Amino acid sequence: MTQPQGGERPVVQKYGGTSVATLARIRRVAASVAEARRAAGGVVVVVSAMGATTDRLLGQARRLHPRPPARELDALLATGETVTAPLLAMALDALGTPAVSLSGLQAGIRTAPHHRRARIVDVVPQRITDELERGRVVVVAGFQGVIADTLETTTLGRGGSDTTAVALAAALGAGVCDIFTDVRGVYSADPRVVADARRLPEIGYDEMLELAAVGAAVLHPRAVEIAAAHAVPIRVRSTFHPRDQGTLVVREPTVEPRQKVRGIAHQEDCAKVTVVGVPDRPGIAAAIFSPLAAAGISVDAIVQNVGHAGLTDVSFTVAAADLDQIHDLLPQLVAAVGAAEATVDAAIAKVSVVGTGVLGSPGVAARMFRALADQRINIGMIVASEIRITATVPRDRAQDAVRALHRAYELERL
Amino acid sequence: MTQPQGGERPVVQKYGGTSVATLARIRRVAASVAEARRAAGGVVVVVSAMGATTDRLLGQARRLHPRPPARELDALLATGETVTAPLLAMALDALGTPAVSLSGLQAGIRTAPHHRRARIVDVVPQRITDELERGRVVVVAGFQGVIADTLETTTLGRGGSDTTAVALAAALGAGVCDIFTDVRGVYSADPRVVADARRLPEIGYDEMLELAAVGAAVLHPRAVEIAAAHAVPIRVRSTFHPRDQGTLVVREPTVEPRQKVRGIAHQEDCAKVTVVGVPDRPGIAAAIFSPLAAAGISVDAIVQNVGHAGLTDVSFTVAAADLDQIHDLLPQLVAAVGAAEATVDAAIAKVSVVGTGVLGSPGVAARMFRALADQRINIGMIVASEIRITATVPRDRAQDAVRALHRAYELERL
Repeated sequence: MTQPQGGERPVVQKYGGTSVATLARIRRVAASVAEARRAAGGVVVVVSAMGATTDRLLGQARRLHPRPPARELDALLATGETVTAPLLAMALDALGTPAVSLSGLQAGIRTAPHHRRARIVDVVPQRITDELERGRVVVVAGFQGVIADTLETTTLGRGGSDTTAVALAAALGAGVCDIFTDVRGVYSADPRVVADARRLPEIGYDEMLELAAVGAAVLHPRAVEIAAAHAVPIRVRSTFHPRDQGTLVVREPTVEPRQKVRGIAHQEDCAKVTVVGVPDRPGIAAAIFSPLAAAGISVDAIVQNVGHAGLTDVSFTVAAADLDQIHDLLPQLVAAVGAAEATVDAAIAKVSVVGTGVLGSPGVAARMFRALADQRINIGMIVASEIRITATVPRDRAQDAVRALHRAYELERL
Repeated sequence: MTQPQGGERPVVQKYGGTSVATLARIRRVAASVAEARRAAGGVVVVVSAMGATTDRLLGQARRLHPRPPARELDALLATGETVTAPLLAMALDALGTPAVSLSGLQAGIRTAPHHRRARIVDVVPQRITDELERGRVVVVAGFQGVIADTLETTTLGRGGSDTTAVALAAALGAGVCDIFTDVRGVYSADPRVVADARRLPEIGYDEMLELAAVGAAVLHPRAVEIAAAHAVPIRVRSTFHPRDQGTLVVREPTVEPRQKVRGIAHQEDCAKVTVVGVPDRPGIAAAIFSPLAAAGISVDAIVQNVGHAGLTDVSFTVAAADLDQIHDLLPQLVAAVGAAEATVDAAIAKVSVVGTGVLGSPGVAARMFRALADQRINIGMIVASEIRITATVPRDRAQDAVRALHRAYELERL
């Protein structure tokens, strides 16, 4: 991504679907953007589809086709954001703030030649910088991009507007990327599950990434990755409490020496897939996971059992939303690796303890398993990295698990 | 427009907003298209926005901005068609008919650099012919185009999907352009106004053009112009009665020797503008009408009074929808031509008698004015061409005038 040299640093702001759900809210966002415009050198705003638009469009597609073709879904779903952008530009113009809306194509958001979860491969922000120089606020339709060669419309997956915003912030050398959403920041656990969860004033990219990866839906993981790679500071803020400081996501968080665990994340819509009786030879993992990756399916929490009689079982978790596709792929996958069969448990959840250095910190893991055992919550699989320990649990016990862990690490204390 | 050489002639079908108003209707259209696909070499389908989508979007825009910027309106309104196209492609795919949706941009619909009523300047149908060769039905989002240099989205004005369809039919050398709509063809008058109006099996381009220009909203005038220029036969048909023959619009209609008048058209949403006390010198008409044309405002029924004392009055009619823009332009227009003032009558209608040779046919005009006088309907202005005589009448008498004229020319008879 090319970055313009010199000049004042623009600000990128992203407003999510709840923030632009009605015309009244779009007016409110316009007022907030107009204020930011007065304070900053230039403002680029990235918007999501209004409210439940994307779900409504997806529902229409599914009523017409049991498995809507991905290419057509992208063309359809992208319209949600294409509606919001000109509406916000009009609301800004009505306030006397010159503005112009741009589609992903016009904004130079170029993606890989895939649909539904396309990765941004380049940002060509010339049109944006031209418009900023003309003194206009630039409103970009989030979530969408284009395959440069073919002019095909692509979308970036759920939460893709975050990705658009951070990618633009990186390409424009923005001073900050404000992610306005319907929550007041990143919390030590989901406040809907844990009543005394507290807001984190600051968090590191890696910690945020792990939280996002395991269900803290505040920020899209891909957005955090791009922010980390380009050192773009992200501020997660509430549209409805604009004076709040929110949570700043940055490279070097202030260290809290006495508390390594930062938060408890959970993800309820998971499924566990087990490929049973796989011949245990080198390259077998690649043979299983390459076709899934090619189909754009994210896999997490991979566990391979110790083999016996030359056979092994490989388990992994996937998003419940991918189950349809998984069911399509499993037969040929089982045949390709010479496995006996594949089983699916569609009713699991993941619960994670997140914080830099948790795995190396004595007692963090032990306290986690003790807390779950005390609640008689069965653990299915365990995976751990330097900054995250994740356990799968039965879906109907997920919220109990989150509350128990939040208490166990005393996260309600400041 | 480049036309491909050789090969079977494809068919172009256009389905209007009522025809695709619901998912059930989209499914029905898909079935009809799939049937056409079996009969024809290739099928290109042009779709409008679903039902009242365009009006809904326009309403949202107006609630955010008293005069929404035209560029932003185009970006917003174009989404209506961009939703229908992939939905129909999915419905076709669900029936086992491979299909691909294309935006105006992807379909190569290039327009002049104007908004709201952009003219198509070129069609580059390479992508369409490629997809037809791959055996796919191509579903094109109507009403929208792109300014090639800047990638700006444009729209073609109300009824613009007709224009898309005919322009594509011309560029592709299509055998016929089927315009599927919610009426059963072109009638001798609006059947909602005249109970015994009859369907015309065939009509000439020029007659259709005059009917369209004065309110028979069955076909967009620009679409008829393009069809005439490229000799594309248009068949106006009912989506809900697909076995009906509808009305064929062609270059050489079957002559009906004893009846020159083909139909009565009317347009209720008109306004009359009079520029008063214009210095009567050469070029004054251009000085008045050039700025209106530049603003994309269509003017009809121009009447210039005989001047006295070197001054003259110039009257013309415009669509009521253009009144806001007219009010903006009038002060500078009056100043520029050195006129005294401009007046606007916002409550008029136009009533027209249409048929090849009407003006040259003895008695046609006389019978028109006698019929209106018998009903005590005041005539404001009169303009006539070889194939149309138009009178302005008070809006609240327009329907009486249509019924009186339909009777006067005995159009209820076959």
